[in-house]
Amino acid sequence: MAEFTSKIRTIEWVDNYSKMVDQTKFPYSFEYVNITKGDKMFDAIKTMIVRGAPAIGIAGAHGVVLYAQELAEQNLPIEEFCSKLLEKADYMASARPTAVNLMWAVEKQKEIIKKYCHSELDSESVITKLVDELRINGKKLEEEDIAINKKIGDYGAEVVPKGATILTHCNAGALATVGYGTALGVVRSAYAKDNTVQVFADETRPRQQGARITTLELTMDGIPVTLITDGMCSYFMKKGMIDMVCVGADRIAANGDAANKIGTYTVAIAAKYHNIPFYVAAPLSTIDTSIKSGDDIVIEERSHDEVTHINGKPICAEGVKIINPGFDVTPHELIAGIITEKGILRPDYKKSIADAFNKD
Amino acid sequence: MAEFTSKIRTIEWVDNYSKMVDQTKFPYSFEYVNITKGDKMFDAIKTMIVRGAPAIGIAGAHGVVLYAQELAEQNLPIEEFCSKLLEKADYMASARPTAVNLMWAVEKQKEIIKKYCHSELDSESVITKLVDELRINGKKLEEEDIAINKKIGDYGAEVVPKGATILTHCNAGALATVGYGTALGVVRSAYAKDNTVQVFADETRPRQQGARITTLELTMDGIPVTLITDGMCSYFMKKGMIDMVCVGADRIAANGDAANKIGTYTVAIAAKYHNIPFYVAAPLSTIDTSIKSGDDIVIEERSHDEVTHINGKPICAEGVKIINPGFDVTPHELIAGIITEKGILRPDYKKSIADAFNKD
Repeated sequence: MAEFTSKIRTIEWVDNYSKMVDQTKFPYSFEYVNITKGDKMFDAIKTMIVRGAPAIGIAGAHGVVLYAQELAEQNLPIEEFCSKLLEKADYMASARPTAVNLMWAVEKQKEIIKKYCHSELDSESVITKLVDELRINGKKLEEEDIAINKKIGDYGAEVVPKGATILTHCNAGALATVGYGTALGVVRSAYAKDNTVQVFADETRPRQQGARITTLELTMDGIPVTLITDGMCSYFMKKGMIDMVCVGADRIAANGDAANKIGTYTVAIAAKYHNIPFYVAAPLSTIDTSIKSGDDIVIEERSHDEVTHINGKPICAEGVKIINPGFDVTPHELIAGIITEKGILRPDYKKSIADAFNKD
Repeated sequence: MAEFTSKIRTIEWVDNYSKMVDQTKFPYSFEYVNITKGDKMFDAIKTMIVRGAPAIGIAGAHGVVLYAQELAEQNLPIEEFCSKLLEKADYMASARPTAVNLMWAVEKQKEIIKKYCHSELDSESVITKLVDELRINGKKLEEEDIAINKKIGDYGAEVVPKGATILTHCNAGALATVGYGTALGVVRSAYAKDNTVQVFADETRPRQQGARITTLELTMDGIPVTLITDGMCSYFMKKGMIDMVCVGADRIAANGDAANKIGTYTVAIAAKYHNIPFYVAAPLSTIDTSIKSGDDIVIEERSHDEVTHINGKPICAEGVKIINPGFDVTPHELIAGIITEKGILRPDYKKSIADAFNKD
């Protein structure tokens, strides 16, 4: 299997802070920002300096380390330290409601915290050990994310036809993860085998992640990309110019229903109408088996300005009503396969998802 | 039938020039521009100062009058005057390729020109009469357009359910016609009967006619409108929040296939998937019976800047490939009815369209 080397590292723990690409600056600049406080990490997630379900999972894990470092300066008894830190962790997990990865990664940190809560050793040395372990775990989650994405990419590449044009929506790329990407991980692995593969990227209004982020990261990595507006997908499908669709996910229910960026469901319907396979690429950590179907996934309602303004300028009349759901749910019957680090799950998803978790 | 009075008059012949709303300034201002030369009218159509299939038909007819006025100053013999004017008319008709109304309206003016070509009377007085007749015909086409739209509106209102939310794409409104509108004519007539009717307007990237124009004209006329991004339609359809779709058309083939603003086809597929009726509202002049199916409709390829830039600022990485079709074709099997001034045409369209033309 040819190996694709990406230039992009979205988020990385360095010494005692988290270094990340500031994604609000795209496409005008590619800048890094160092996040040194827990509250700043909460804001970075909320304002989408970091975005993408897997990346905000890591950001959340780093955020817990930052809170731990701050609390460690207060010389608290270990019980109080732990209870305050668990509270902060829950707060961090609440920064965005739809992506399950954030809850998942924070939960991994909480498991570590809980191990130390009732230690009989002196608080200072316990806290030092605890903070170290959280930090090490944060870095471990980073490395695991990249390794998982490469596996997703390699499994996915097997179903990419020779010379395929792959349509994607939003950004499920290196910049939505620690690196390499999920849906764009599939693209990278496919491109490494066959450099006639190319991407069509939906603009993805309102926040234009496809235009601002996907075109940027693919261009940086030298993979050919054509930008289209969200309504155009069916036009190109009808013309036979799209061979498959591959998108990421923010949360997948136990039956395979997948929440992803608003507009994904529309693309999935268009793909079905044209008999084009529609794949979701996501790590198993995105699958929330506690949720039976997509009906139970909380859809974040975002600021109306995202719809009414672009680059700070209004695009519509004043006084217009707005509804701005950040995500939609693609029902499992529109999904040809869910590409995970354990292989491609196929319908019946209830069974294939349960089986994938049982392999753990 | 309750009568709806719109505040908007998009284009109007005044004395010896054409006065029109400058639609490139939306949503920042609502300004009029006077077009006094034929070449300026060509540019106004090309740069979309005036847009919308019926409105550019009238603009084309006015443009022929402007050219006629200019040529009349050259004291040419009538044969030379006519041959030059017919050439100018053909040039005017070429300003935009997809909307048939432009060709149709220019053809109406050419029929008048041809009547005078071989007159035996003295050239000066013939030319004066010819120019007068072109001017009168231009004004007649204006009035007919409004009357036709009101008929379309009234027929369409009959299929709007009580309290309906009508989704529309692009702008097929008063501002796409001389006044009242086609798809939004249906909305106006429905609203006059039932003021609980409301509109969801697709933004309609790349040129955002839904955001910039539809929200503006509906707000001016006091009709409730919610702006959504193009990818959102399926989300709201799934939630049961859309009762029907009504759009305009730029050209309709003899089998009912309808070319309209890019993105329309995607909405039609989504409507079909959710069993929501999808209507096209257009005057018979939009139906090109010389074209058998949508496959033969020329799709205008527009400037790449429309996709890569908004308000003059880039939204994507440099070096990205762009394809920017201005229109797509919705196949007849996705269309519940074509609302015309002679009633609602239903499948089989080959038959119902032929019948509508035979009623003439």
